[in-house]
Amino acid sequence: MGWGDLGAFGEPSRETPNLDRMAAEGMLFLDFYTANPLCSPSRAALLTGRLPVRNGFYTTNGHARNAYTPQDIVGGIPDSELLLPELLKKAGYTNKIIGKWHLGHRPQFHPLKHGFDEWFGSPNCHFGPYDNRERPNIPVYRDWEMIGRYYEDFKIDLKTGEANLTQLYLQEALDFISKQQASQQPFFLYWAIDATHAPVYASKQFLGTSQRGLYGDAVREIDDSVGKILNHLQQLGISENTFVFFTSDNGAALISAPRQGGSNGPFLCGKQTTFEGGMREPAIAWWPGHIPAGGVSHQLGNVMDLFSTSLSLAGLQPPSDRQIDGIDLLPVILQGKLIDRPIFYYRGNELMAVRAGLYKAHYWTWSNSWEEHSKGVDFCPGQSVAGVTTHTQEEHTYLPLLFHLGRDPGEKYPLSFASEEYQRAVEHISGLLQQHKASLVPGQPQLNVCDQAVMNWSPPGCEKLGKCLKAPESDPKKCSWPH
Amino acid sequence: MGWGDLGAFGEPSRETPNLDRMAAEGMLFLDFYTANPLCSPSRAALLTGRLPVRNGFYTTNGHARNAYTPQDIVGGIPDSELLLPELLKKAGYTNKIIGKWHLGHRPQFHPLKHGFDEWFGSPNCHFGPYDNRERPNIPVYRDWEMIGRYYEDFKIDLKTGEANLTQLYLQEALDFISKQQASQQPFFLYWAIDATHAPVYASKQFLGTSQRGLYGDAVREIDDSVGKILNHLQQLGISENTFVFFTSDNGAALISAPRQGGSNGPFLCGKQTTFEGGMREPAIAWWPGHIPAGGVSHQLGNVMDLFSTSLSLAGLQPPSDRQIDGIDLLPVILQGKLIDRPIFYYRGNELMAVRAGLYKAHYWTWSNSWEEHSKGVDFCPGQSVAGVTTHTQEEHTYLPLLFHLGRDPGEKYPLSFASEEYQRAVEHISGLLQQHKASLVPGQPQLNVCDQAVMNWSPPGCEKLGKCLKAPESDPKKCSWPH
Repeated sequence: MGWGDLGAFGEPSRETPNLDRMAAEGMLFLDFYTANPLCSPSRAALLTGRLPVRNGFYTTNGHARNAYTPQDIVGGIPDSELLLPELLKKAGYTNKIIGKWHLGHRPQFHPLKHGFDEWFGSPNCHFGPYDNRERPNIPVYRDWEMIGRYYEDFKIDLKTGEANLTQLYLQEALDFISKQQASQQPFFLYWAIDATHAPVYASKQFLGTSQRGLYGDAVREIDDSVGKILNHLQQLGISENTFVFFTSDNGAALISAPRQGGSNGPFLCGKQTTFEGGMREPAIAWWPGHIPAGGVSHQLGNVMDLFSTSLSLAGLQPPSDRQIDGIDLLPVILQGKLIDRPIFYYRGNELMAVRAGLYKAHYWTWSNSWEEHSKGVDFCPGQSVAGVTTHTQEEHTYLPLLFHLGRDPGEKYPLSFASEEYQRAVEHISGLLQQHKASLVPGQPQLNVCDQAVMNWSPPGCEKLGKCLKAPESDPKKCSWPH
Repeated sequence: MGWGDLGAFGEPSRETPNLDRMAAEGMLFLDFYTANPLCSPSRAALLTGRLPVRNGFYTTNGHARNAYTPQDIVGGIPDSELLLPELLKKAGYTNKIIGKWHLGHRPQFHPLKHGFDEWFGSPNCHFGPYDNRERPNIPVYRDWEMIGRYYEDFKIDLKTGEANLTQLYLQEALDFISKQQASQQPFFLYWAIDATHAPVYASKQFLGTSQRGLYGDAVREIDDSVGKILNHLQQLGISENTFVFFTSDNGAALISAPRQGGSNGPFLCGKQTTFEGGMREPAIAWWPGHIPAGGVSHQLGNVMDLFSTSLSLAGLQPPSDRQIDGIDLLPVILQGKLIDRPIFYYRGNELMAVRAGLYKAHYWTWSNSWEEHSKGVDFCPGQSVAGVTTHTQEEHTYLPLLFHLGRDPGEKYPLSFASEEYQRAVEHISGLLQQHKASLVPGQPQLNVCDQAVMNWSPPGCEKLGKCLKAPESDPKKCSWPH
């Protein structure tokens, strides 16, 4: 989902009354970022509070390459990483993940081995259908075991876009919340729905209801579901005791537009890029009785902050034996403070850009290669800014491209290198960058090796279902990350 | 000002609390248009309720050329046109224009000859400073007479952007409203401020207050002024008896970005073009006690509707002896109805595009010429859609380019000519176009002839001020309209 996909963020069809209400009753973040322009690394960052380059969710197979966890990936979340649910457990929380995990699908990466108590969802994206020979269909798990596979037991109609998955995820969420309320136990629910990820889907009751087509139908269903979850919290009388945050893991995938791609509002490019369209996200905090209604914050926020903020809410300290990139947003949310902190825009192993205040310095620019672009792979459809949306990797480390995101949110007008404003801002940002790089201990890259043998051939539980498939011989290779 | 310039429309800095409040208390129009992608013709359309091609505010000097009223223009609003204030007068209204008139500056075009009772402002844009030899500085009028000139008596500091004009216009508005309230007389106030038109300006107290730079400072001052006007109406106890509408006369002039150009949100291109960025406008209706708070409308609206709606509010009928293009929006505003009507996108003498429902058909495409573009004149900076933002005038009258503005608000993905959806929508829209063209009686074009002799050399009142200048010999020429 992109920054421009919600009514509260200016989407012209205004079809998200529930999320807009959530914003009106809570706090809207206008300068909130994800940790990576791609899904898996962002989610790893959200749950560890650490940049992907630290927690291992990146690749060194190429320079500045976007990598994730397809089903032939060998790596996943290392045991050495401490995940939010592992920590919350110590404070008595029951933790559930509903939806996409995406932090590795081999046994050692299972979410219930990393702090979650319950799981309903899948380890990888809902791509397919596959033939179960070349590659298996993606499994859907309940807790430790697979209970079926997408396209086989959990239908997704690629032609009509119909799938009832969001309804299943919603019901799981409502049931979990009811159960926790009944038992008076605190809970952490990671509701990781994926209806707006291509192949985009919506339930029958939402198909055709949006001005925006199938993508809008999916957004409407998510919006409706969020409304039902918030109402449920209120009806159970626990809304004033439950902190809710809504955000996304990367900008809208413009490459899937118009049928399956969303909107990044006035920002440049989309998913896969380190321009604003790739990493600035819709974000809303809601906690009636605590967060003043109708608040709007310009705090530079990041999904990693949800790690630190959640710990703070639970009365826990973040781990002191490692670098945590997230910050505690409670002073921002509850007292309206602004905390000075930079945003780092990584693409794989390269720090592409840094934002401090309203200034953003690009040390590298790249959209994608000419070769890919000539094949129609376009992360910036209809947009082209000379010297900025480059199709070769352009190094600007000696003289970064500097933008003022207040005057120029669309990153179209680099400041003059000769200006005093440029000198002052770049000096400041380059200091932050040096500090960051000097102390950086990169994690072991997890997204380098791919192997057909590790795919979801025989997940736990496959025997009961008669759905075990035969894995091919192991043949580890460097994963290919074209962009 | 552009669609994306207000917080309520998603502007990322959220610096328009007063206009956002106006929207929250009133009705926000998301699909509201101006009648032309340029100022003078839009304003003529607003006040006559008629398309520029009918009221004469267009040129036949070239095909599809944008024309306006610079100070060497010979034409202006014809006496045969009936303006809103002329009609309101019959219902006892006192009519005042504050700010830019732009409907011609020669004596016969004076606003007080066309229904206004009072005027404080200027006949042309605040361009300059001029040398008073080649061309005179633009006069500022109070009612019938000039009381000074821009840059001489009404300062605009082009370097800092400082000018207190909006404050003058605000005070005029407050005083006029107070006077009308005291005398218990109904009034029509046309508050035609121009701070966001290049050269953009703001008062000292607003300079440097916006994240967005000088343009944002100007928007903030306008926002603050609107807030003061609405508060004034409330304090005088006449807010429930006063209908207020806020909109703009063309999309943000992206050519003036980043220092002096605004935002058209997610839409394509800007001022001067018939893409959405050039003609879709922010629009808010406010009338406490009558308009339900927080309303949002997808009614296809147009500035010309303000003519018909205002007459309706005053209990008057629109003239029956001529074609009126505006519609009465009261059923939309008060009862939430949706009225089926097309939007016509003209550029000079050519109907470039037509919108009906969510479909928009382009019969001609043009941004500007290659020649201008190569000189850096760019109405679509950072944007380029092959076959759409063309630099030659491209005719599509036999096979219009069709966009679905719900799925594709950015006009990037023309529908396939072969699709059933295309056939159905184009058949419908082409029917509307034929109907429109068949009944069209173009007005005498007013924007064809330019003459240095008609410039503001010696406006009425210049003698008292010692500011009469000698006009050169008359030398009428075809005006040059490059785009």
